[in-house]
Amino acid sequence: MSDEQEVPQALVSLRQSIDNIDAALVYMLAERFKCTRLVGELKAASGLPAADRSREEVQISRLRRLADAANLDPVFAEKFLKFIINEVIRHHNEVAATGSSDQ
Amino acid sequence: MSDEQEVPQALVSLRQSIDNIDAALVYMLAERFKCTRLVGELKAASGLPAADRSREEVQISRLRRLADAANLDPVFAEKFLKFIINEVIRHHNEVAATGSSDQ
Repeated sequence: MSDEQEVPQALVSLRQSIDNIDAALVYMLAERFKCTRLVGELKAASGLPAADRSREEVQISRLRRLADAANLDPVFAEKFLKFIINEVIRHHNEVAATGSSDQ
Repeated sequence: MSDEQEVPQALVSLRQSIDNIDAALVYMLAERFKCTRLVGELKAASGLPAADRSREEVQISRLRRLADAANLDPVFAEKFLKFIINEVIRHHNEVAATGSSDQ
């Protein structure tokens, strides 16, 4: 189906929506990582511990509720948050000593 | 750090931003899955093949460009898209026969 002429107009339109949403997701994620980077710096400067399990638990249960309201699979929402958190942790490992794992 | 009194105000504010962004991400993702669900139905109704490797390649290179513009790691953007695509495929497997893997 690489030939656009074979693709129904409705499918083209849906793909445009998907592309628009993906762009929004990318910009949102970029903003989120800006925040977590600042959190990392702030925690390091304040001598606060990097990890915060209770904060993570609150985030997960909140995201599951939001997912439920949005008609998104809550199990997926949790997987998604953990996927992002892993990336945050990877960032912190890269910047090593001063890192934080605020999620 | 479960005691809110120990958390600096700047950190509280950043966490609020992270929570706001997470809510936006959840609602965006819910909308995206609505689109891919419709794509699946449309493809099945039109007798179009489920997978479309060329579409996926275009999506990945576009997302990497967007990530670059947003100052987000392009490698992460690609990992992110693949993570989402895997979920789309899982959905399609669940609905079995009629599924599509439009990403």
